[in-house]
Amino acid sequence: MPPSLPTPSVALRAIPTLARAATTSAGTTPTPPKPPPSKDHHVHSYSPEAFPLGYAVSSTHASIKKKAGALDLGILVSTADRPCSAAACLTRNVFKAAPVTVTTELLHSGHGRARGFIVNSGCANAVTGKKGLEDAWAMSKNTTSQLPPGPDGVGTLVMSTGVIGQHLPISNILGKIPDLTRSLEDSSKAWLDLAKAFMTTDTFPKLRARTFKLGDRLVRIAGIDKGAGMIAPSMGPPQPPHATLLGVIATDAAIHPEALQSALNYAVDRSFNNITVDGDMSTNDSILCLANGAAGKVADEGRESADQMEEITELGNPEEFGIFKEELRSFAEELAQLVVRDGEGATKFVTIRVKNAPSYDIANAVAKSVANSSLFKTAMYGEDANWGRILCAVGYTPLSPNPISPTKVSVTFIPSSTLSDSTPLRLLTNGEPEPNIDEARASTILAEEDLEVEIDLGDGNEEAKVWTCDFSHEYVTINGSYRS
Amino acid sequence: MPPSLPTPSVALRAIPTLARAATTSAGTTPTPPKPPPSKDHHVHSYSPEAFPLGYAVSSTHASIKKKAGALDLGILVSTADRPCSAAACLTRNVFKAAPVTVTTELLHSGHGRARGFIVNSGCANAVTGKKGLEDAWAMSKNTTSQLPPGPDGVGTLVMSTGVIGQHLPISNILGKIPDLTRSLEDSSKAWLDLAKAFMTTDTFPKLRARTFKLGDRLVRIAGIDKGAGMIAPSMGPPQPPHATLLGVIATDAAIHPEALQSALNYAVDRSFNNITVDGDMSTNDSILCLANGAAGKVADEGRESADQMEEITELGNPEEFGIFKEELRSFAEELAQLVVRDGEGATKFVTIRVKNAPSYDIANAVAKSVANSSLFKTAMYGEDANWGRILCAVGYTPLSPNPISPTKVSVTFIPSSTLSDSTPLRLLTNGEPEPNIDEARASTILAEEDLEVEIDLGDGNEEAKVWTCDFSHEYVTINGSYRS
Repeated sequence: MPPSLPTPSVALRAIPTLARAATTSAGTTPTPPKPPPSKDHHVHSYSPEAFPLGYAVSSTHASIKKKAGALDLGILVSTADRPCSAAACLTRNVFKAAPVTVTTELLHSGHGRARGFIVNSGCANAVTGKKGLEDAWAMSKNTTSQLPPGPDGVGTLVMSTGVIGQHLPISNILGKIPDLTRSLEDSSKAWLDLAKAFMTTDTFPKLRARTFKLGDRLVRIAGIDKGAGMIAPSMGPPQPPHATLLGVIATDAAIHPEALQSALNYAVDRSFNNITVDGDMSTNDSILCLANGAAGKVADEGRESADQMEEITELGNPEEFGIFKEELRSFAEELAQLVVRDGEGATKFVTIRVKNAPSYDIANAVAKSVANSSLFKTAMYGEDANWGRILCAVGYTPLSPNPISPTKVSVTFIPSSTLSDSTPLRLLTNGEPEPNIDEARASTILAEEDLEVEIDLGDGNEEAKVWTCDFSHEYVTINGSYRS
Repeated sequence: MPPSLPTPSVALRAIPTLARAATTSAGTTPTPPKPPPSKDHHVHSYSPEAFPLGYAVSSTHASIKKKAGALDLGILVSTADRPCSAAACLTRNVFKAAPVTVTTELLHSGHGRARGFIVNSGCANAVTGKKGLEDAWAMSKNTTSQLPPGPDGVGTLVMSTGVIGQHLPISNILGKIPDLTRSLEDSSKAWLDLAKAFMTTDTFPKLRARTFKLGDRLVRIAGIDKGAGMIAPSMGPPQPPHATLLGVIATDAAIHPEALQSALNYAVDRSFNNITVDGDMSTNDSILCLANGAAGKVADEGRESADQMEEITELGNPEEFGIFKEELRSFAEELAQLVVRDGEGATKFVTIRVKNAPSYDIANAVAKSVANSSLFKTAMYGEDANWGRILCAVGYTPLSPNPISPTKVSVTFIPSSTLSDSTPLRLLTNGEPEPNIDEARASTILAEEDLEVEIDLGDGNEEAKVWTCDFSHEYVTINGSYRS
């Protein structure tokens, strides 16, 4: 590993908020610093029954992160008797990190089955050449070898997140794997600790769980994700492989690997692939999905079922598949939004909804153009109703041919549900600015943490939603010295 | 005009630099704030002979900018006896500002001839509907009507820059045009004042002039531009029209309108279209080019020539056209770089050079992907040699099909010429990180204002250069409250 740089900017990291200026050169009254809002309420607690059956997890400190005791290595293993289905959506970045390559090969060789995964934070093992690949394979194989024997070719998937271009402290990691495999458990605390082992610049661990009815069973789904910066994922199925958003969704439903991949593609395209913090698509973005079929309880009757749930396929069980796919999308959306809420330095959560577009792809491209505009994002931070910047970003959406007709476009602010007056505030109608915008009301709307910007293209029936955050002083502080 | 917002963030604008933190929450020794470097040395002074013959300029305060006396309206007029050739490259944003539309129509109706232009700063007259168009036409026609009679259809071009979505204070503007046309002059001060009338968040006026030999004549060229934010231009010729970089290049060479447009397209594609501050392509980006043929002095002999210079055409005078085109490109590059040096909050000037690419377009796309990465730009601000972010941005360049082979890519820092040790610092070779990077040297290189990042794709012979700046706290401060 290259040594750390000298510390020209170390002091910056210690500053939680540089948000608003504390002094002015003109000697005017200081504006008090405005800290990012507290995010503690996004950490939910669950009883052990909330988590899917047949999984065990553990995590530890392997000295990858510098902070003593910080969780930075974890594993999740399926303990079910039957093979566990596995699917993934992985980064489309040309520079795929070594763990992305290894996970791709393992999904192939295992024909869509896996034992579970190992994850580390603090080092991305990306752009690390041949040694990087050897290290990722060592993490996988070493874990698999310490689990009970399983089918040939079915291995442990790998995920890494952190600094790019540095080698993993692989001996630390391999030295900790025996501890991890010995201390596997299924407690609520163990799940939350695993979520902590995913974290880099995240300010809170991201863990969600829910239960739903699938066929005659009650099934459970749990998900962990991480990410705060380098967030603008574009992930597809492993062939061709393409990631630093990391996430895992584990369910005890029984889903055939092909159906699992198909449902995950659908869900990721409408959730993780529609969030942005800074427009930087990472080398490591990975969403894994595991389905071990361990769900035992028959819905409505509350009794445990002795028979195994049969694996759902797309053609064989279209109704159940449809239910699963939609539950997965909705769950993935919840997890994806947590990443935006914890965006580096974020003080705002903004939904960009583009409606009445000629196609979903056009709606999506327009929404992403606005969601990634530095000028729009700084205006949101400044709570400045500078809607001209929204229009500007709509107008430079890279579309060829470009079907947008300026005289058909309308823009509206939809206030947060936290406000008593939920009347939408129209800013532009068919390309003409509203003559008497209530700027005081605009300010009230923008002062809330949540905002929805609705862009009506006036030409079609399709709609897309993208979630973004604002661009703050704190973002610059965090990223001016990430490696320090 | 909508009223200004209440002032939640007004105090921010008064703060010249929030760059480095003055305090830390941990109570450690404060890091002193690091101001953007002084940019005064970029203001050059010229003798009156440096400016092209046959032009007169003037500027005034028309109460568009709030600051009393701030220059915000100006005109430039050709005073030559013969018609003045005119060409333009205008924004490709779908929401073309009213002045962009009017300039396009005037270039058509005038068959590539114009009287000059009128420019205002402080309000972009963009997304302003029908009234916006009426206002832009009024600016043009009112100016033309107060000049000596000229050929039918040949008018005064229009440019505007400032806030989007607000109407111009048109009666203020029209009331000042008689003063402007009465006070036209060709002094050095008048040229510099015109450059000031272009400014918005610019910290210095941008004016350059040079002289070169064209055929048997000495010709002069002068240029003004402005822009600091919303800078990621993509400009093409007026059909189809497309804009808040503003610039004008005026020469006393005699160039036929078609040849002038051809040379301008070439020059803009290799200069203004290859700069970025924040990746936001404006609704108003406009580069005008005027050539009035007033150059009188025969080169080498120093005597004034009584005969008019003949208009150069692309086919009729290939050698002279080639010289003019290359001079225009080089001059445009100088003007374009000034915009990046004055990028909002910029403390660094970074050249991204992509070489050994399969095509110019691929080289250009890769360079722009890095130049627009928020994570790369914040690392530059933090003087952090986090080159993994460079690779990451190379890897997500939107190319289809994507020809980049990760194992062929090399990355090198080329130190600023201000450093005594100019040895390039190799970071990555053929996809493998260099094992022992001298981090102390990397820090020394990154501490300078200028840096070149060389990205070798190892697959072809084509090359492109893009110029960008860093992303600082000050950028967020400026843009969190631009309208205030």
